Amino acid sequence: MSSTNLPHQSEELERLRALLPGWVKTSKTMCQAGKVASYIPELSKAPADALGIHVIDFSGNSVTAGDCGLSFTMQSISKVFTLLLALIDRGPEIVFDKVGMEPTGDNFNSMLKLELVQPSIPFNPLINAGAIAISSLIGGDGPEEKSERVLRFFRRLAGNPELAYDLDVYRSEALSADLNRSMAYFLKDKGVLKGKVDDVLDVYFRHCSIAVTCSDLSRMALVLANDGTDPLSGEVLIPRRYVQIAKTFMVTCGMYNASGQFAIEVGLPAKSGVAGGILTLVPGRYGIGIVGPSLNPKGNSIAGVHLLETLSQSLDWSLF
Amino acid sequence: MSSTNLPHQSEELERLRALLPGWVKTSKTMCQAGKVASYIPELSKAPADALGIHVIDFSGNSVTAGDCGLSFTMQSISKVFTLLLALIDRGPEIVFDKVGMEPTGDNFNSMLKLELVQPSIPFNPLINAGAIAISSLIGGDGPEEKSERVLRFFRRLAGNPELAYDLDVYRSEALSADLNRSMAYFLKDKGVLKGKVDDVLDVYFRHCSIAVTCSDLSRMALVLANDGTDPLSGEVLIPRRYVQIAKTFMVTCGMYNASGQFAIEVGLPAKSGVAGGILTLVPGRYGIGIVGPSLNPKGNSIAGVHLLETLSQSLDWSLF
Amino acid sequence: MSSTNLPHQSEELERLRALLPGWVKTSKTMCQAGKVASYIPELSKAPADALGIHVIDFSGNSVTAGDCGLSFTMQSISKVFTLLLALIDRGPEIVFDKVGMEPTGDNFNSMLKLELVQPSIPFNPLINAGAIAISSLIGGDGPEEKSERVLRFFRRLAGNPELAYDLDVYRSEALSADLNRSMAYFLKDKGVLKGKVDDVLDVYFRHCSIAVTCSDLSRMALVLANDGTDPLSGEVLIPRRYVQIAKTFMVTCGMYNASGQFAIEVGLPAKSGVAGGILTLVPGRYGIGIVGPSLNPKGNSIAGVHLLETLSQSLDWSLF
Amino acid sequence: MSSTNLPHQSEELERLRALLPGWVKTSKTMCQAGKVASYIPELSKAPADALGIHVIDFSGNSVTAGDCGLSFTMQSISKVFTLLLALIDRGPEIVFDKVGMEPTGDNFNSMLKLELVQPSIPFNPLINAGAIAISSLIGGDGPEEKSERVLRFFRRLAGNPELAYDLDVYRSEALSADLNRSMAYFLKDKGVLKGKVDDVLDVYFRHCSIAVTCSDLSRMALVLANDGTDPLSGEVLIPRRYVQIAKTFMVTCGMYNASGQFAIEVGLPAKSGVAGGILTLVPGRYGIGIVGPSLNPKGNSIAGVHLLETLSQSLDWSLF
Repeated sequence: MSSTNLPHQSEELERLRALLPGWVKTSKTMCQAGKVASYIPELSKAPADALGIHVIDFSGNSVTAGDCGLSFTMQSISKVFTLLLALIDRGPEIVFDKVGMEPTGDNFNSMLKLELVQPSIPFNPLINAGAIAISSLIGGDGPEEKSERVLRFFRRLAGNPELAYDLDVYRSEALSADLNRSMAYFLKDKGVLKGKVDDVLDVYFRHCSIAVTCSDLSRMALVLANDGTDPLSGEVLIPRRYVQIAKTFMVTCGMYNASGQFAIEVGLPAKSGVAGGILTLVPGRYGIGIVGPSLNPKGNSIAGVHLLETLSQSLDWSLF
Repeated sequence: MSSTNLPHQSEELERLRALLPGWVKTSKTMCQAGKVASYIPELSKAPADALGIHVIDFSGNSVTAGDCGLSFTMQSISKVFTLLLALIDRGPEIVFDKVGMEPTGDNFNSMLKLELVQPSIPFNPLINAGAIAISSLIGGDGPEEKSERVLRFFRRLAGNPELAYDLDVYRSEALSADLNRSMAYFLKDKGVLKGKVDDVLDVYFRHCSIAVTCSDLSRMALVLANDGTDPLSGEVLIPRRYVQIAKTFMVTCGMYNASGQFAIEVGLPAKSGVAGGILTLVPGRYGIGIVGPSLNPKGNSIAGVHLLETLSQSLDWSLF
Repeated sequence: MSSTNLPHQSEELERLRALLPGWVKTSKTMCQAGKVASYIPELSKAPADALGIHVIDFSGNSVTAGDCGLSFTMQSISKVFTLLLALIDRGPEIVFDKVGMEPTGDNFNSMLKLELVQPSIPFNPLINAGAIAISSLIGGDGPEEKSERVLRFFRRLAGNPELAYDLDVYRSEALSADLNRSMAYFLKDKGVLKGKVDDVLDVYFRHCSIAVTCSDLSRMALVLANDGTDPLSGEVLIPRRYVQIAKTFMVTCGMYNASGQFAIEVGLPAKSGVAGGILTLVPGRYGIGIVGPSLNPKGNSIAGVHLLETLSQSLDWSLF
Repeated sequence: MSSTNLPHQSEELERLRALLPGWVKTSKTMCQAGKVASYIPELSKAPADALGIHVIDFSGNSVTAGDCGLSFTMQSISKVFTLLLALIDRGPEIVFDKVGMEPTGDNFNSMLKLELVQPSIPFNPLINAGAIAISSLIGGDGPEEKSERVLRFFRRLAGNPELAYDLDVYRSEALSADLNRSMAYFLKDKGVLKGKVDDVLDVYFRHCSIAVTCSDLSRMALVLANDGTDPLSGEVLIPRRYVQIAKTFMVTCGMYNASGQFAIEVGLPAKSGVAGGILTLVPGRYGIGIVGPSLNPKGNSIAGVHLLETLSQSLDWSLF
C-alpha cells in the first residue's frame, strides 16, 4: 500500500514543506495563553514559547519546522509504548484484568473513580493510575531489568540507540511524586499492583523521563502508522492487533480529558505529555512528533493542539 | 469512490450472505445472559431472545439475518440525529455552548459530573442530560413543531415516510421519566435549558419513541457512511462536517460507558438504545441496523455487540 | 427545675441586658464580609447590615438588642418544625425510612450522595433533599390541608396566631426552584417521595416562606428548650423524645456543612435559614432568635454566628 | 459539683450493678449479626462473641459486667487523645490549619472529599486522613520520641504505667497499611503532612496499637467526663477547652458515619475502634469503657452500641 501511495504522499509532503513554517508561526502565538508544567520542578525550565514539528513518511522523507532541535522528556507519551510492551509481554487478558478500556472524563491524576467504581481498577492505561498499573506488568526481574527492557524497546521503535533518560527530570519526578505514590498504594491496597510500590514507580518515573526530540517521536509514530512494522526497515516490531488497541486508546483517551474534543477537531490517534510533546500519526501515511511546552488547562501543548487542528482540517486528515 | 469499490463490496456482501445466519445463531445464545430493559414498563414486552441485522451497501443491495421484522423504538439512537438536526438548525457554536465533547465514564443517566465539574453543562450530547439539552435546541415554535421537524428529518434519512411514534412507549416513557425530569430541572437551574422543562422533555420522549426496524436504521446509517449524502438518491441530507462530528461522538460516547471497549473490540462508529437497537456503519461502505432487546449491564444489546465483534474482527472493519 | 434556677437566670438575663448592645455592635461589623442570599430574588431585598437578637427565659422575661423588629422568612429553620410535625403525624419508623440521620459534609442543596450512596434516601431531614421528603410526610389531604396544619402548628409554638406566609417570597421561591424540583424528581424516581412533586414542593415552599421576627423564633425555641412543653402556658406541644431527636439534628446538621465548627465554637442546638435567621436555645433556660441577613459562604448569618460565639464563650453555654 | 452528686450517683451505680449483667446478656446476642474486623489480619483473632463493660464514677467506684478482662488495641479510640496531645503541643490554630471540623458522611477511610473539596485538608481529626495529619503534629524529635510522648500521655490518663503496644497488631497494621499510606502521600502532596510519610505512619500505627482493657478506657474517659482533671487525683491533665473540643468531635464524628444515628439513639460523646472498643462518658458523672469485637457494617461494636442504647435510654443519659 505504501508504495502506490508514494507519489500522492510526496506531493502532500511538498505542500507541507511550503505551508508548515507559516502555520507554526501562527500557532506559536498561542503559547502565551498557556503555561509550562511546574509540578515537576525540572519541567518548568522548558522554553515557554517553543513550538516544533517533525513529519516523516513511509519512505523516510521528512519535513520539519520550528524548534525541532529541542530535547524534552516523553512523560505520558511513553504510556502508549509501555502499554504495547506489556501487551507483548503478558497478552491482553492479563493486561485488561488490571486496567479498563474506558475514558473517565476526570483529570489524569484523579483517584475518584478508583473509590467510586467497582472493581477498583484504573479506567484505562493512559491515565496515571492505569499507566502505573501497566508499569508493574512489564516483563523482567526487578525494576532495573524492566527499565532496561523499556529503554531497549523505545530505542528500537525510534531507530535511535542513543535514546536515554534525562536524569535531572527523573530525579525531579521521583522527588515530587507524592500523588503518584498515593495512587500506587491505593492500587496496591486493591490488589491491582503486585510487588513493591517503589519498584513499580521507579520503572514508571524512568520511562516518563526518557528524553526525545520531535524526530524521535515521529519515528516511533511511524511504526504505529504502519501497523507495527517499521516501513523503513520492514521489520515487524509490534503485532498489528496491539497497535490497533494502542491507536484506539490514543483516540479515546490520548489527550487527557480533552480527548473527545481533540477527536472532533483533529480526529487522529495522538498522545500528549506534560513536557509539551505530542505524538500523532496519519494511519498508512505519516508519523508526527510535536513539541510545545506551554500547556492548556487540560495539560496538552496549547500551540501543538492548535497546529494539529490546522493541519488536520487543511489536509482533511481526520479518521472520521 | 463507491463505484470503484462495488465489485469488491458485492463480493463481501455475498460472503456476508453466507456467513451471517450462522453468526447470528451463535450470537443469539448470548441473549439469555442479558436482560430486557424494564425501567420503561412498555419496553419490557420486547422478545428477550430476538436478534436481527440488516446491512445495506451504497448500491442499495442488502443482506439480512435473524429477526429483522421486529419493530422497536430508537431510544438513545435518536440522539445522534437530533444532534445533527440541532447542528443544522443552530450551528456548532451554539450547540457546544450547551453540551461538551467528552466521554464521562459514568452511567448514561448520571448527574454526578453536572454537580462536580464546572461549568455545569452535560459532558456530551449522547448521555441523557446532553440529549435533553440538544432537544431544547431543535428549531421550531413549541414542542409540536419541533417534534414534527424531527420526525420529518428522520423520515428523510430513513427513506421511509411511514416512520412514526410508538405511542404506547411514548406514554410509558413520559410516565416513568422522573429521573430525566430531575436532570432537566438541574440543567434549567444552571441555565443550560431555556423554555419549559415539560416542553423540552416532550420533544425528547417523542424522538426516543420513534419506531423503526433494522432496515430503517441501516438506511439512516448509510447516509452517515456516505458523509451525509444519500448514496441511493444522491441527495445531500447533512453537511459532511456535521456527520464527521456525529461519527466521532459515536466512537467516543456511542455505546454508553462501554464505548471505549467497543472501540477496541469493534472499532466502528455506533449508537445503541435501550430498546436493543444498534445503529452502526462501515465508512464509505455499509449502513447497518441491529436489534436484540436483551441488554448487558451497560445497557447495550448483549447479542448485538457480540455479533458486531464477530463481524468487525472477521472482516477487518475497525477504523483503527 | 426551672423554678430553682430562676434567681440565677434572672441575674444572667440582667447581665445580658447590659452586655448585648455592645456585643451586637461588635458583631454587626462582620456583616460587610458576608452577602445577602440572592438565589431567591425576593430575599436579596433584605438589609445587609442588620443584626437583631431576642432572648426569652422560662418566666417569659426577655432581652432584645439590635434590629429586632425586622420580619424575615424562616427558610430552613422551618425544617426543624416540619420534622417535628412529621414525627408527630407518622412516628419515627416511617420518617426514618425516608430520611437518614447522618451529616453529609456536602452543601445543603447537593445531590451527590443521593447518587453515590445506597439506599438513595436523603442523609438527614435538614438538608434540602431531606426536608422535601419530610414535607411529603406531613399529615393531611392535599397540599392545602398539609400547609394549613403546618401553619397552625407553627403558630401554636410561636404563641402567635398572626404568623403568616410572606407571599412575595413564596412566589419568588416557587419561581426559582429548579434545583429543588430536580431534587424532588430524583427522590420520586427512587421511591422516597409519594404523591405529586408539585404538591410536595408547594408545602415545602410555603413553610419556608413563613414570616417571623426574632421574637417568634425565640418563643418557638423556648418550647424546645423546655423539652416540648411551653414553659409559659404549661401546655405539652411536642413529645419530649421528638424534641430530643430534633435538638440532636440541630447539633449535628443544623448549620449546614458548618455544623461541626458551630458545635465546637458555640455548642448549642441551632438551625439557620438563608434569610439570615438563626433559632437556637440553651436547654432548660432560654429560647433565642437571631436575624442577620448577610451570610457567610456556608449560608449562615455571618454576624449572627459571631454573636453566638461571643455569647456562648462568654457565658459558658456550650453543651459539651 | 461531684461531691454533692455522690449520693445520687452511687444509687444509680447500685442500680447499674443490678441491671448490667442482664443487659449485657441481651446485647451479647447481637454479636452474631456482626463481624470481627479482618483487614488487619491480627485483629481477626479476637473473640467474636465477647462483650464487656466497665463504668467508673468520680469517687473511683466502678461496676463491671461481661468479658472485662479482654485486652484489645485502641485503634481509632486513640485518635481522641492524639488530637488532645496535638492541641496541647501546637494549639488549636495550627491544628485546625491542617484538619477541619466537619463530619463527612463518608467511610472512615474515604479519600473522596480530599479530591473534591478545597482546600484538601481532612474534614475532621477522627477519620483516618485527619488522624494521620494529627499524628504528624505531635511534638517530639522523630517518630520514636513522638510515640514515646503519646504513650506517656495515654498512661497518665489511664492511670496505668503498664500500658503498652501490642506489637503483633502493630506489625500486622504496618503490613496491611497500603490504603493509609495512600492517604498519607495524598496529604503530603497537598502540603498537609510535613516530614517523612513512613515516620508519620509509624507514630500512627503505634498509637492505634496500644493495648487496653475496658478498665483503662473507663479511666481515660473519666478524665474527659471531668473536663480534663482526674477526679481521683485532682490533677489537671488536659485544659478544659481542649476537652470540650474533643467531646464535641466525639458527638459529631466519633462513631464513623453512624455518628448522627448514635447521637440520636445514645446522645453521649463516644469514640469507637475497629478492635471493638468504645470509649464513652456521662459528663460530670462517669467514664465508660466497652469492648465487643463483632462490628456492624459501619465499623462499630454491634453489641456495644446496642448496650449503650439500652443504658442511655433506660437511665436518660442523652445530652440532648
